[in-house]
Amino acid sequence: MKEKLTLMIPGPTPVPERVLKALGKHPIGHRSPEFQEIVKSTTNLLKWLHQTKGDVLTITGSGTAAMEAGIINTLSKGDKVICGENGKFGERWVKVAKAYGLNVTTVKAKWGEPLDPESFKNLLNKDKDIRAVIITHSETSTGVINNLEAISKLVKSHENAIMIADCVTSIGACNVPMDEWSIDVIASGSQKGYRMPPGLSFVAMSQKAWEANERSDLPKFYLDLRSYKKAADKNSNPYTPGVNLYFALEEALKIMKEEGLEAIFKRHNRHMQAIQEAVNAIGLTLFAKEGYGSPSITSVIPNNDINAEEIRKYIKNKFDILIAGGQDHLKGKVFRIGHLGFINDRDIITVIAALEASLDHMGVLNKPLGTGVAAATKILINN
Amino acid sequence: MKEKLTLMIPGPTPVPERVLKALGKHPIGHRSPEFQEIVKSTTNLLKWLHQTKGDVLTITGSGTAAMEAGIINTLSKGDKVICGENGKFGERWVKVAKAYGLNVTTVKAKWGEPLDPESFKNLLNKDKDIRAVIITHSETSTGVINNLEAISKLVKSHENAIMIADCVTSIGACNVPMDEWSIDVIASGSQKGYRMPPGLSFVAMSQKAWEANERSDLPKFYLDLRSYKKAADKNSNPYTPGVNLYFALEEALKIMKEEGLEAIFKRHNRHMQAIQEAVNAIGLTLFAKEGYGSPSITSVIPNNDINAEEIRKYIKNKFDILIAGGQDHLKGKVFRIGHLGFINDRDIITVIAALEASLDHMGVLNKPLGTGVAAATKILINN
Repeated sequence: MKEKLTLMIPGPTPVPERVLKALGKHPIGHRSPEFQEIVKSTTNLLKWLHQTKGDVLTITGSGTAAMEAGIINTLSKGDKVICGENGKFGERWVKVAKAYGLNVTTVKAKWGEPLDPESFKNLLNKDKDIRAVIITHSETSTGVINNLEAISKLVKSHENAIMIADCVTSIGACNVPMDEWSIDVIASGSQKGYRMPPGLSFVAMSQKAWEANERSDLPKFYLDLRSYKKAADKNSNPYTPGVNLYFALEEALKIMKEEGLEAIFKRHNRHMQAIQEAVNAIGLTLFAKEGYGSPSITSVIPNNDINAEEIRKYIKNKFDILIAGGQDHLKGKVFRIGHLGFINDRDIITVIAALEASLDHMGVLNKPLGTGVAAATKILINN
Repeated sequence: MKEKLTLMIPGPTPVPERVLKALGKHPIGHRSPEFQEIVKSTTNLLKWLHQTKGDVLTITGSGTAAMEAGIINTLSKGDKVICGENGKFGERWVKVAKAYGLNVTTVKAKWGEPLDPESFKNLLNKDKDIRAVIITHSETSTGVINNLEAISKLVKSHENAIMIADCVTSIGACNVPMDEWSIDVIASGSQKGYRMPPGLSFVAMSQKAWEANERSDLPKFYLDLRSYKKAADKNSNPYTPGVNLYFALEEALKIMKEEGLEAIFKRHNRHMQAIQEAVNAIGLTLFAKEGYGSPSITSVIPNNDINAEEIRKYIKNKFDILIAGGQDHLKGKVFRIGHLGFINDRDIITVIAALEASLDHMGVLNKPLGTGVAAATKILINN
């Protein structure tokens, strides 16, 4: 039943009916007082979500635009930066930094492994001139969560560096207290934990980030955050924003507020645990190093050399659940289950049941049918 | 009745119910074959709309992003460019060009007057090194249409220059045959003639524009059109696009195809004429020079020194029609009636009736009530 397809990829994620209804309303003028009220309300809710007193600016564009904005608004040509690279998105920020002529040192970890804070410490200690550390918090390509808290605290004690974090699949899934952890720039996108469609992205800026902005000389116009800040101070936008996406954003953030941050984080953690337990119980292998599983996405290596794409396709065609494949060299090697945003316990049970069914269908389920569902259920009912 | 507000501003424009319904559907995976079909279909329809065999690329972002992309993907630092400047948007492209270190010569005309092709001819004739001419076709801030055809033909015969045009409020309103007029880059935005909400923008690129791209050295990442072209050749996008906006785009372009280009252009022309006749009949003054009125927006100077904002507010509050005010130094001096996109004869009649009513209410309607409506009606029923 193609019309009943549900999304368990790491974005776009499922969208509540209330949000879709808001999205489908007739647009209004983006310079009207009615729209200013929406900008005001969403800005306040975004600050709540980021746990910050700083600015959170909304850009019409994808998460990549937000991340690029964070980089090019705080740095200058030739600036020394350290980029963490342990997946596809880490690689992307290296490309952005190089496209603008930054002087990039990379701290690498194998895909599936987390970045080691010690490596950042050593580099920061020996060079006062480093201007930024750029990392991906939850690496969507591998399902690994990096220790942003530890790395950000190292950056805080450095003389000149700011902390720039891609929190695209961590904001709205786990705790990312921007001010408490001293993160200077956070980028995120609407089609993730926000439980709304893609098209808006967000850049949060600390006071230290704005200070860095004053010396930034990289050319920019559409992504010049000074224009967004100036407009945001009047509850407006510098250019025509995605008006209908704003309607959806307001509704989505209200739903998040109703659920509450603690409950959101707990739900994602339970779902991550349930999937991990189920995967272990049926004898497949978790791709992320133990203890570093992302709260929003779990990468799994199939057993018996099965091509992961076959599992993905069977689950899509038979059970109308879209899960993600591996990216780049992981294509066919892993599949990825998204459990981010508007996901409930039923979704977790069904995706595990579908996974077991696909393995059984291929003749490689080495445990009785229901083993995975039982393991997941135990976590879900006891937590 | 605030809930029944209708838009007659130059964007966002009214959106058909079919498009809103498409917008409000549940998102699908942006890497799925189902979505690739949508990219393929919209790309073909965009080429039809632009009357081109070249590429039309879709960016998630506002029209400003598309225009910036057109400039930074074809030019290099220090390049000599000529910018036409006879309104707010002309000014904006000068700012973009300067932000990226281009060497800008401006050709100016008073707001309300069109750009003079002769001025471009003189500059192009005396300098072989000019790399681009950048103009706004329909200047939204003043309601003036510039002679893009004539200017583009001058550029065609120049050795090195390409023609970059902001067609944000002309595409889908009047004839802009990209290939026939030898326009190299056309930028536009979804909330205008496309009759869908804001959030997507479009950059059309000729072969000559791609040749210019090969020597372009300006830094870019999110707006790097090579990534969009590479992805578009596989019916995909480089970054997560506004998936729901794509649903709306497909439906909107289908509606445009059903109406047909000739019918669309004729309708906009009739509406422009009807409003112009009505404005003259009731003794107000058209801001644009005669013969240079935009097919999508008409700027009007009120009589008896009435503040244009008062007329705008009265029409909004009493008749639930949102028209636009003047921008920058024209604030209070003019109001602007948008007649772009999903606008029918009834809308034209009602906005003129509302205008007459507001003047009557203020005691400055110097003609019998109904004079404007009569003038508009004559055009509408006889054309």
